[in-house]
Amino acid sequence: MQNPASPPANSRPNSAPLALAKLHVTDAFWREKMRLVRETVLPHQWALLNDAVEGVQKSYCLHNFRAAAARIAAEKNGEPVSPPPEKRLFETWPERPDEARSDRFYGFLFQDSDLYKWLEAVAYTLADTPCAALSAQADAAIELICAAQADDGYLDTYYILHGREHAFENLRDNHELYCFGHLTEAAVAYFRATGKTRLLACARRFADLLCERFSDLPGGSPGYPGHPEAELALYRLYAATGEARYRALAERFLSRRGQRPYFYDAERGAAPAKPGELRYTYYQAHLPVRSQREAVGHAVRAMYLYSAMADCAGFGDREMYAACRALFADVAYRKMYVTGGVGSTADGEAFTFAYDLPNDTAYAETCAAAGLVFFAWRMLQLEPDALYGDVLERALYNGLLAGMSADGKRFFYVNPLESDPAACAQDPRKRHVRPTREPWFGCACCPPNLARTVMRIGQYACTAKADTCWFHLHIGLAVELENARLQTASGLPYSGEFSVRVESCRAPLTLAVRIPAWCGGQYTLSGAEGAERREQDGYLYLRGRFAPGTVLRFVFAMPARFVRADARVRADAGKVAVMRGPLVYCMEEADNGKGLHLCLFDTSKAPQPEMTALPGLGRVPTLTVSGVRQSAPDPAAPYEAAAPAEEPAAFRLLPYFLWANRETGEMQVFTREKRC
Amino acid sequence: MQNPASPPANSRPNSAPLALAKLHVTDAFWREKMRLVRETVLPHQWALLNDAVEGVQKSYCLHNFRAAAARIAAEKNGEPVSPPPEKRLFETWPERPDEARSDRFYGFLFQDSDLYKWLEAVAYTLADTPCAALSAQADAAIELICAAQADDGYLDTYYILHGREHAFENLRDNHELYCFGHLTEAAVAYFRATGKTRLLACARRFADLLCERFSDLPGGSPGYPGHPEAELALYRLYAATGEARYRALAERFLSRRGQRPYFYDAERGAAPAKPGELRYTYYQAHLPVRSQREAVGHAVRAMYLYSAMADCAGFGDREMYAACRALFADVAYRKMYVTGGVGSTADGEAFTFAYDLPNDTAYAETCAAAGLVFFAWRMLQLEPDALYGDVLERALYNGLLAGMSADGKRFFYVNPLESDPAACAQDPRKRHVRPTREPWFGCACCPPNLARTVMRIGQYACTAKADTCWFHLHIGLAVELENARLQTASGLPYSGEFSVRVESCRAPLTLAVRIPAWCGGQYTLSGAEGAERREQDGYLYLRGRFAPGTVLRFVFAMPARFVRADARVRADAGKVAVMRGPLVYCMEEADNGKGLHLCLFDTSKAPQPEMTALPGLGRVPTLTVSGVRQSAPDPAAPYEAAAPAEEPAAFRLLPYFLWANRETGEMQVFTREKRC
Repeated sequence: MQNPASPPANSRPNSAPLALAKLHVTDAFWREKMRLVRETVLPHQWALLNDAVEGVQKSYCLHNFRAAAARIAAEKNGEPVSPPPEKRLFETWPERPDEARSDRFYGFLFQDSDLYKWLEAVAYTLADTPCAALSAQADAAIELICAAQADDGYLDTYYILHGREHAFENLRDNHELYCFGHLTEAAVAYFRATGKTRLLACARRFADLLCERFSDLPGGSPGYPGHPEAELALYRLYAATGEARYRALAERFLSRRGQRPYFYDAERGAAPAKPGELRYTYYQAHLPVRSQREAVGHAVRAMYLYSAMADCAGFGDREMYAACRALFADVAYRKMYVTGGVGSTADGEAFTFAYDLPNDTAYAETCAAAGLVFFAWRMLQLEPDALYGDVLERALYNGLLAGMSADGKRFFYVNPLESDPAACAQDPRKRHVRPTREPWFGCACCPPNLARTVMRIGQYACTAKADTCWFHLHIGLAVELENARLQTASGLPYSGEFSVRVESCRAPLTLAVRIPAWCGGQYTLSGAEGAERREQDGYLYLRGRFAPGTVLRFVFAMPARFVRADARVRADAGKVAVMRGPLVYCMEEADNGKGLHLCLFDTSKAPQPEMTALPGLGRVPTLTVSGVRQSAPDPAAPYEAAAPAEEPAAFRLLPYFLWANRETGEMQVFTREKRC
Repeated sequence: MQNPASPPANSRPNSAPLALAKLHVTDAFWREKMRLVRETVLPHQWALLNDAVEGVQKSYCLHNFRAAAARIAAEKNGEPVSPPPEKRLFETWPERPDEARSDRFYGFLFQDSDLYKWLEAVAYTLADTPCAALSAQADAAIELICAAQADDGYLDTYYILHGREHAFENLRDNHELYCFGHLTEAAVAYFRATGKTRLLACARRFADLLCERFSDLPGGSPGYPGHPEAELALYRLYAATGEARYRALAERFLSRRGQRPYFYDAERGAAPAKPGELRYTYYQAHLPVRSQREAVGHAVRAMYLYSAMADCAGFGDREMYAACRALFADVAYRKMYVTGGVGSTADGEAFTFAYDLPNDTAYAETCAAAGLVFFAWRMLQLEPDALYGDVLERALYNGLLAGMSADGKRFFYVNPLESDPAACAQDPRKRHVRPTREPWFGCACCPPNLARTVMRIGQYACTAKADTCWFHLHIGLAVELENARLQTASGLPYSGEFSVRVESCRAPLTLAVRIPAWCGGQYTLSGAEGAERREQDGYLYLRGRFAPGTVLRFVFAMPARFVRADARVRADAGKVAVMRGPLVYCMEEADNGKGLHLCLFDTSKAPQPEMTALPGLGRVPTLTVSGVRQSAPDPAAPYEAAAPAEEPAAFRLLPYFLWANRETGEMQVFTREKRC
């Protein structure tokens, strides 16, 4: 899709996710990631949320729920409660851990959302692999959450502990509606996965309160969330319950955004800001959403907002659809790293401007890569165009997966494309860039976001409508459609085989398989001899009444190849990255020594794939790239350096998502090209 | 000098500046700059200091002196004075200009120093070109300064207006001793230039107060300045007056710096910081100065400190000398831009770490380039090594001169080596970088610093000792030595001719001329047939009893040439800059269109010098460089860009110090190299 000028006539949703029960991930690569999340990440995060891990920044997440539940109970029983602290702060930590008071809130004021995201990941986990212990743990957490809910449905431990009378007084900054959104996503997921309604009822009670509070009727607040998330959650809640008021509230939140006079000004009695001032673009509230065409501001906010806009477009809102298409193209063509990371600057964790994609100061937050997955997936449901699938795949295998260590115990918040530990330590401009993953963060949004995204991979991989099933990702799945059962198998991301075996088929069926951009149109297909065949927007459509046992066997060409950024990207001028299939590769100091900026790739020679045993990583698919290594003697005087000498060299590259699993050292994705 | 491991045995000063009256600048290039300073910069700055320029950030500098003088007078007369404001702020501005109170201080709390630097520049100007009107203006300003001085010698308008009882309570941050230093430099310069002692007496009274206040005797404060400047000024005051206590105070300030326990902790009752914490390195107070080997922290502070350390080394302090040499080498080889700019980051206006020299986010403050001139010049007096002269020349012709527009009315504070106006406007990491010069700054340290440095060029150009005269810079000068009169003439910076005509010579004389690194050892010399000749440390020494009329005629090869940064500089990997003689050249959008990052230089073809008439700049020496321009069609999909096509192209370069004098556009010093 090439920067579309106008949307196609049809802007109703084209396809929908399959129910969790109708999908089972059998993919070797992803099952291993899911096992890691189930066996390591979730228990580890549970311990962290409970402050049961030594030597790590305490979360206070469960602490806050317990404190809020105790307060709600005390209030109900008419027992005395402590007055709230005088100041309400965005972030509060006890001076010393042992000084934490049992009746106080600690952490960022969106700390509740960590538990909700964890629960959402647990929901998908239980749908995949029932587990009584995990189920009991989750149910107990849900009881605690419900106990912290006020009688009128309000639920936010920060305000419950620090003054309910201040609730909703700062929608721009204070994340209550964001927390509501994650509560709701968790509730819907848990209901879908387990059929249990306890958390769903809790979310609905809160949602009902919001519907009233933010109604268009007299007395209703005209506000909307500073950090989008409630919107997309309300669409999920609507889909799960059929209650039109939830969808209507989502649509109100979207439509109010960016209208003049600005609600955020009125909210704080501020003078109207000048047009274009950061404080609106940061929140994507600089323009009404249907008029937005350029991705701006805080990248995670942007992705969550655009996702909800795509949900809205699915109900036939053509203006919204046009905005979504333009915003997606702006991100994909002008503001996205080769890894699918978005957010070029730490300043506001934000987009900057077109083609500004610095490698070494990138922000590319793990959450933003997840957000891009959500956005792309919703666009695919509107319009099955391979651009969306390619971006979804790119963000998933690179920008998102890099957020987690190979052992599932450490995480990146920021995902640079070039890292020099010396610079991270000494350069204030890179203080947000870590050369190694951290066990946890005070602001711990990313790890559980990664977990919930990985555990839902099946739903991201395919969607369906009537008798058509789209495979957006090439992963191994058992799929149950209304009239057919399918079993896919895949060699991805390490080899290009993808097959769809038709287990049963009771009626004519269309199978739509994305032809990934990375194969350059080079693929073979066997087993589809009897099917009608057409290609549209990067998908191959095969229609037929397939005999049971039919295997459609694709082999996508997956040569390792040099890729280039748009020529307008200054940071990558004269440089190439290396990809093989969906994976971006990188060089690390552990394999190539120091001074990666002095390595040049000879792009006339194809990179050679191989399997290499690497300490702590086992056998890893690596690439060997030929080139030269430059060196120069110390200059005789400042700026009298000789032209560097070049020696032939072979460089080892490994998948980007595996970087920083060995000793700390330099890393580089884009490398200078030697053109011979 | 190649990163010396140990200093030579002799660490006594080798040479000294010539008196202002013994020097007259006749150089075509520099006289024009001096004329600009005299006729435009100084009157313009005077108007700015007096808040007489519309549409520009008000300075309040003279306002503050008038307010302080009124208060001192009122106190003497026992009249009531207004109480100081409750809060003492680093920077105070009236809400609206018409709300400025006549008895209040406004601006940064070092605002006084702007007037002092202006006066210092005026002093050199009057020494060069007597002018009754300017002299009267300066004398009136001096009267005002003296009127603002308290009875005990204290002089700082901020504290006089906002509470004398708080004087010296925050040496780390509050710049009183910095202002004292600039007062003293101005006083010494004005005395040297005019023989008038009014301001010198004022500075001495303040210095005497400081000698007592900061004595080592019981009751003395153990403090030292947060922003070095007083130290080098005290050495100048000592040289002008012969009073040993001034030198002793300078040495005390230096020796106290970085000693444990840290004075700055005691000063504010803070817990001792961890070693290496920014708050010490920023002030170069992380280690005792004699133990320092790496340039760190705020670049201007560093340069002023190291200058004073070199002054101290001149009295035979060998440890100090070893530190100075190591620090200079660290700056010159590892932390200096090709322009002589220093300070790689806006964060703290500071040095970062070795070889970290980003082009587009450089700080390279104009004041820091001036500071490097001061440091290099003092090192030259200790040890005539061409390294120091080369650096002095580099910083002067490039990093410093770029600070001023061709019309003398606009200034750069920050001097980037690459500028994209779109990025400056939209990228928060580049918010310190301006694509055009500004008429003035709230923090206006740079413009008067540039003025005083330009007006003192004669003294920077040569120093002497006994019967030897060193020419560090190749500029036209009339020089009067004890036993000889010389007249030099120069084609620099545009051609390599430099001649020394001996007007008279009453005794054997040694003339030492720096052989600039940029000539690569290629030069011719005529007229020195009868002289003894030796080359040492990059200086050619010619000794003889020269007949009047003798002309020593040097022609230094000055081909335009490609230069390279040290291979360890990541930002410049694969790139070259272009120099001709001492001048760094750059490309501008006005000559070369947009997208300078897509230009590559063919370094196998020599750049061609020519004269080009440019709008607003007249005839300018430019260079034409051959190369290619890359272009690429819009990629079909993200990161599927084709290898860029290359078209032969010729690029026009102009001297870096002349950039940003035409329409706003891109600028680039380092350009990718096409190696054929």
